[in-house]
Amino acid sequence: MADPTVDGERFRRRFDEFSDIGATENGGVNRPSLSDENKAARDTVVEWFREAGLAVTVDEMGNIFGRRAGANPDADPVLFGSHVDSQYNGGRYDGVVGVLGALEAVEALNDADVTTDRPLEVVAWSNEEGVRFQPDMLGSGVFCDQFDLEYAYEREDKDGKRFGEELERIGYKGDAPCEPRDLHCYFEMHVEQGPFLEQEGLPVAAVEGVFGFSWMNVTFEGQANHAGPTPMDMRHDAFVATADVTRSVRRLTATEGTDLVGTVGSVDVWPNAINVIPETVEFTVDFRSYDDAVVDAAVEQIQREIAHAAEREGLEYEFEEIMRVDADPFDQSCIDTVVDAAETVGCEYTRLVSGAGHDANYLNKIAPTSMIFVPSVDGISHRESEFTEWEDIVTGTEVLLEAVRSKAAE
Amino acid sequence: MADPTVDGERFRRRFDEFSDIGATENGGVNRPSLSDENKAARDTVVEWFREAGLAVTVDEMGNIFGRRAGANPDADPVLFGSHVDSQYNGGRYDGVVGVLGALEAVEALNDADVTTDRPLEVVAWSNEEGVRFQPDMLGSGVFCDQFDLEYAYEREDKDGKRFGEELERIGYKGDAPCEPRDLHCYFEMHVEQGPFLEQEGLPVAAVEGVFGFSWMNVTFEGQANHAGPTPMDMRHDAFVATADVTRSVRRLTATEGTDLVGTVGSVDVWPNAINVIPETVEFTVDFRSYDDAVVDAAVEQIQREIAHAAEREGLEYEFEEIMRVDADPFDQSCIDTVVDAAETVGCEYTRLVSGAGHDANYLNKIAPTSMIFVPSVDGISHRESEFTEWEDIVTGTEVLLEAVRSKAAE
Repeated sequence: MADPTVDGERFRRRFDEFSDIGATENGGVNRPSLSDENKAARDTVVEWFREAGLAVTVDEMGNIFGRRAGANPDADPVLFGSHVDSQYNGGRYDGVVGVLGALEAVEALNDADVTTDRPLEVVAWSNEEGVRFQPDMLGSGVFCDQFDLEYAYEREDKDGKRFGEELERIGYKGDAPCEPRDLHCYFEMHVEQGPFLEQEGLPVAAVEGVFGFSWMNVTFEGQANHAGPTPMDMRHDAFVATADVTRSVRRLTATEGTDLVGTVGSVDVWPNAINVIPETVEFTVDFRSYDDAVVDAAVEQIQREIAHAAEREGLEYEFEEIMRVDADPFDQSCIDTVVDAAETVGCEYTRLVSGAGHDANYLNKIAPTSMIFVPSVDGISHRESEFTEWEDIVTGTEVLLEAVRSKAAE
Repeated sequence: MADPTVDGERFRRRFDEFSDIGATENGGVNRPSLSDENKAARDTVVEWFREAGLAVTVDEMGNIFGRRAGANPDADPVLFGSHVDSQYNGGRYDGVVGVLGALEAVEALNDADVTTDRPLEVVAWSNEEGVRFQPDMLGSGVFCDQFDLEYAYEREDKDGKRFGEELERIGYKGDAPCEPRDLHCYFEMHVEQGPFLEQEGLPVAAVEGVFGFSWMNVTFEGQANHAGPTPMDMRHDAFVATADVTRSVRRLTATEGTDLVGTVGSVDVWPNAINVIPETVEFTVDFRSYDDAVVDAAVEQIQREIAHAAEREGLEYEFEEIMRVDADPFDQSCIDTVVDAAETVGCEYTRLVSGAGHDANYLNKIAPTSMIFVPSVDGISHRESEFTEWEDIVTGTEVLLEAVRSKAAE
């Protein structure tokens, strides 16, 4: 029996063909969740899963599973995969390398005629990105009992179309129950979406866990007045206070001596006219760290800064923490399995903590989990220019294959 | 022959009836330029002008003139008025008090059977606000040869509707040429839109001139990346730089020891998502002063601040000064006439410089001009809560009547 070997050229042909689905002019893809392009991507996944001999199941959330029988058919399966929905005009690699890489690992086992002890399951999760329907990671979230199915079905896009109706429209409302079941473990290969691997010149990382984060909405309410005749001392300018808080967010990340990152990402100004003092500004703050106490401290500190900014400018304000997720350390045995797999493959590797959330976070709640990162050139993701060297994706897939084989033999 | 007397109650009835046109739930009016509500307001103006015996002319820009014959019919007329278009959900007083106040002055002359030496003309200018069609003060601008008629006709609203077509649609594309002609002088009564008169407890001000200003567009271009895995030292955050510049604008107004006012009023962020670092921010800066050198210095200084902010954050930037208007001192004889009129009326008054532009600025280019301000409670304007005590409007109208009579006798 030959050792199973990843076929980088076959994988590449499939990846390129897949990249044509919803391709954008600038080399990205536009396949938001449950769009026609997302349906086409799903159809291709199902077709290729079947061609690889996998038994395909679609669950009530449209999560697509492909099962490969094991020598011990009743053992809990090893699950591995990622997602194929994209950001609006997003990159080709995000999610896709994890699904097509999992498929390639199965093909390598098929080529070598290897039957693992445990069954294997490859998965493509629904609505990971959360750009059309919020929240993100909705498919894995329902699967891991974090959201009710009905809640998920009623999520609306900005045109008022519901997730459940759109799922039915594209023909992916399956019959299989979307609920936790016994899994031996879960692996996910994904692009890093950060710069560390490229900076270090390494092809893969074993992911030890994911940053916790807080999402906050802030509203400042001042007074809209004419920018000419209103003296500076009578102004109640909601945007000046927003600028104050934005600089406080940046300063906190620099002065706390921690791994804290902070971002003001969304800002809406009203009435938003060149000659009118801003009356209302709604904006968001995002704080992340691998240490929950660091996030807690930052959330407390920024509330004080918001109160100070409002008082200085004579504003009313509202503050709401709309989401709080604790740091999520992955399973030590799964991390070790990835590290061992990298050593077996003979590639250089490091251990990383992820700043971004993934489906793996929810899976980690119901089964031992870890991830494999491959580099993002210039740390860029969620953009059409997202890029990973193909040889690194092949190396990552070799590590994935080894990790899966190792766990499937337990 | 009795002395002409302003009839506050008649004026009030008309003002209240006029406020019903395009009335909003919160006590304001919504009559943007060339809307159906603006047409209804114009129809009422024309009807009331005619009822007051005025000969009505509508020019090619839809400016509405009502002429009252003088004893010396060939003498250059005294022109006075303002505008009846409103902001979106704006206040009831802005512009309207100047047009209906002018009409009331004519009614007072009619009641007393006074014929002035010079002809009088009352005017309602088109598109003063500039909220639907930019630029503002378009009707008086063409009349004073600041814009071509064709340029004005081709202005588009955000739905692509053209000024010329909409003017025709509402039936106010008149035949009279819209071009400079000989005027003896121009007066305009208007709400102050600032807090000075109310703070001083005074009913009227003689306006000595208007602040000059600069309008600037700034664009910062950074890099949209995921707010989690992108380390702080690799960020190119266009909104952080915008916050820096916003605080520089505020600081400049405090530290230069001048009458400079500065505002960042319009801010658009892209992609504007809670978990994505802002890639592009477009924003505006508005600087005003009665000293052109102060505006010049502020424009220079803020360009340095913009360059510094871009360099700190590693951004590209664009800077454009999209409008520059010099400070505009009014005619000394007209200012003196307003002051003398206030003394004749026997009311308290002060002299003010206006922070906001008015149709009077353009008229000042072709004829001796001044303005009369009445108080804005809390300095509020361009909002539904805009308010002026009625007795102050009556006092302002008495001053307007006296000023017009005085100039019409020259």
